[in-house]
Amino acid sequence: MSDAQTPPRPQALPGDVIARLKAALGPKGWSQDANELGPHIADWRGRFQGQTPILLKPANTAEVSAAVRICHEAGIAITPQGGNTSLCGASTPQGEVLMTLKRMNAVREVDPDNDSMTVEAGCILESLQNTAASAGRLFPLSLGSQGSAMIGGLISTNAGGVHVLRYGMTRELVLGLEAVLPDGTIWSGLTGLRKDNTGYDLKQLLIGAEGTLGIITAATLKLFPRPAKMELAFCGLNSVEDAVSFLSLAKKVSGGAVTAFEIMPRLALDFVLAFVPGTRDPLESSHPWYVVCEMSFGRVEGARETLEAALGEAFEAELISDAAIAENESQALDFWRLRESIALAERGQGTAIKHDISIPVSKMAAFIKLAGERIKTIFPDGVVVAFGHVGDGNVHYNIVGLDEATQQAMLAKGTAISSCVYDTVDEFGGSISAEHGIGILKREELAARKPVDVAVMRAIKQALDPKGIMNPRVLLG
Amino acid sequence: MSDAQTPPRPQALPGDVIARLKAALGPKGWSQDANELGPHIADWRGRFQGQTPILLKPANTAEVSAAVRICHEAGIAITPQGGNTSLCGASTPQGEVLMTLKRMNAVREVDPDNDSMTVEAGCILESLQNTAASAGRLFPLSLGSQGSAMIGGLISTNAGGVHVLRYGMTRELVLGLEAVLPDGTIWSGLTGLRKDNTGYDLKQLLIGAEGTLGIITAATLKLFPRPAKMELAFCGLNSVEDAVSFLSLAKKVSGGAVTAFEIMPRLALDFVLAFVPGTRDPLESSHPWYVVCEMSFGRVEGARETLEAALGEAFEAELISDAAIAENESQALDFWRLRESIALAERGQGTAIKHDISIPVSKMAAFIKLAGERIKTIFPDGVVVAFGHVGDGNVHYNIVGLDEATQQAMLAKGTAISSCVYDTVDEFGGSISAEHGIGILKREELAARKPVDVAVMRAIKQALDPKGIMNPRVLLG
Repeated sequence: MSDAQTPPRPQALPGDVIARLKAALGPKGWSQDANELGPHIADWRGRFQGQTPILLKPANTAEVSAAVRICHEAGIAITPQGGNTSLCGASTPQGEVLMTLKRMNAVREVDPDNDSMTVEAGCILESLQNTAASAGRLFPLSLGSQGSAMIGGLISTNAGGVHVLRYGMTRELVLGLEAVLPDGTIWSGLTGLRKDNTGYDLKQLLIGAEGTLGIITAATLKLFPRPAKMELAFCGLNSVEDAVSFLSLAKKVSGGAVTAFEIMPRLALDFVLAFVPGTRDPLESSHPWYVVCEMSFGRVEGARETLEAALGEAFEAELISDAAIAENESQALDFWRLRESIALAERGQGTAIKHDISIPVSKMAAFIKLAGERIKTIFPDGVVVAFGHVGDGNVHYNIVGLDEATQQAMLAKGTAISSCVYDTVDEFGGSISAEHGIGILKREELAARKPVDVAVMRAIKQALDPKGIMNPRVLLG
Repeated sequence: MSDAQTPPRPQALPGDVIARLKAALGPKGWSQDANELGPHIADWRGRFQGQTPILLKPANTAEVSAAVRICHEAGIAITPQGGNTSLCGASTPQGEVLMTLKRMNAVREVDPDNDSMTVEAGCILESLQNTAASAGRLFPLSLGSQGSAMIGGLISTNAGGVHVLRYGMTRELVLGLEAVLPDGTIWSGLTGLRKDNTGYDLKQLLIGAEGTLGIITAATLKLFPRPAKMELAFCGLNSVEDAVSFLSLAKKVSGGAVTAFEIMPRLALDFVLAFVPGTRDPLESSHPWYVVCEMSFGRVEGARETLEAALGEAFEAELISDAAIAENESQALDFWRLRESIALAERGQGTAIKHDISIPVSKMAAFIKLAGERIKTIFPDGVVVAFGHVGDGNVHYNIVGLDEATQQAMLAKGTAISSCVYDTVDEFGGSISAEHGIGILKREELAARKPVDVAVMRAIKQALDPKGIMNPRVLLG
């Protein structure tokens, strides 16, 4: 699974290229200091350790362009990096020139009447949420790493998170982009327009391309009205089927006010209660599954009543067995914490084999059942913990061992287990990477499972980056 | 403006290619009958008259693939055609082989629990709205030509319409695509997934490509909950500024329930009242501008109150001067008819010089003012009628003459007037084609105004269609 074992391919980087890069970016624009490089050349989970001859720190788009042009002329590869929170090794250099966008963190414009803001790639997500709030607007992208993830990287990986159900993936939040193309050309596609049918929508190619087609330097983002009231319920259920039916019902009753709908099994709750201090179960008895259901409303009046109406109908239809409604913001944070601590609690529990997959919502229950049965035949002691964004058909489908010996035995079967999961995903018309991307972790899986797609992607890559200098080991590498 | 004057480039189509195409599609799969060809080789507004050596009518994706492969091998160009409702000449062949998708009109699957349906390219929009309704869901795409426009063409041109404000352009309604690529390869990208981060999102390239990168054969479309209640108001206002402020207020008060927000000037209402039988002004006195504001709600309770609250606050803030609320569905249809008859009424009024443009919503008022002043200096007798989807920043910015002599004089200044409009659009960061596309009508404007974009588009076109056989005269032609 890890790329750390394969020897990096060091890049022969002529001294004059280094000198030209240093001159183009000035003394603040580069580093070769091992201490400074350290956090940039390893991923945050410690799975990938890399190396780079130089870290570039451009301060503006012109400097990005100048540096890319120098690299392009010399045929030198570049790895662009945002907040370095990739889960797939997409931003760890293995000998490439490394470029961090962190100095480019200006908010260029906030335009509340157009519901948009234009920001530079190095802005941290959490600060952008605050920028939007200060203008009386909502920027809805919301995910675990929001305190360090940068918007350029979030766009380059088309990040997901908990509000996709209502507001869409990052792709749907981007109105316009500015980027430096592989030959150093600055492409000025910043626009606050909702409608612009003037040829191929080029920004769509850069979104989710993981830095292989150019470097995003700025973006114009969609803003939304801030909800006047949010309501949250923590519900106990018997099955995934019931959760999916409850989702349909909640969407219908609330008229699309459902902004998050997350599922977790009892075992995940057990892990959280065991490993995360200060957590407690909001419900009195135990249930096989739990759902966190969030609704957002434009008016305070009727908000609580709408949630209660949805829960009432769900009880009536025997889709949920019990529910607690958050009475205030602090209780809402407590409920959210149960969901958001699962990854942390799993680490406390020990090694897991993880899969970030999606399935059509209507087939989710059947998938979880069948995949679980198949995994039992490969490794009977493995326990499935499937949790996450069931409203989007996206679950983090992880297999855990309940003690260390089991975990070791499970790792030996890791490849077989993952192949079984991915094969079943394919049968159900699902995706082997719902929101984390490909990086270097899944590039072989992608090539094997989507050959026609990959052939078209390679043709596009060749057309836009004929020298193959943009993040070459990632995605198609 | 019209391409009808430029001599078509007849394509030398060898007899054996014709024979192979006929054999591949069978006797029902082609026509060379002049009567049958007639409506397919002229556009519906009568601006473009074309020709074709043969009309192909494939019944399924395999037949599309077979025909494209034959054309690809022989280097023969193809124009794909849906409902032939293009406003820009994108589907009128000028010697190309013409392929209609009209026989491919099956609904392959409706999956209400996944809020999706998979349909073939030849399905007519109105019938798809009904298909969704039968499953208790909403397919929100809605526009004037919905009785004949086909979904393949709507996707190929990324159609807009009146519900973009809430549900997005066609692009945002497409989850997956199946298409035949320029070499005849079938690309199977049908998926009902909300989240799928496995490389470049190839469907995005085909959406809005106007048939230049391949032929869309089927699509998986997003469905939504049906609103339990819709409310509609027809409002009189003093200015575009006030309309934009009213929109912000209505979005905020209703929490995003605004699903349409259309503007029209008094003159447009006058045209409609004069030329469209059975229409009447819902308001007692005259106002410089009018807005049709639609809200959609998941619950009946509180719906009317929300609209009234928004109108009340708008009165208070002196953003609107008068308003009528539709008391029933028939009255709502009457209000909508005032807006939707403008194009028809304009034809009654005589020739107009039309522009389908978009501007950031916050700059719309300033744009309309400045562009109007500039047009006065070119042609003082021209009267601006700007109407449409102001909530998306998209207006149909038309110049009319009030009598025939003025219209003739205006046409002589047509190029200067359009250049002035487009130059002003550029200054405001707008788009010269918001929803109608480029076709053959605006390809020179596009090439002149977005050279970097067009260079990248050409590189992509060359990579995917090296022989240049897919709708070659359109967009980049």
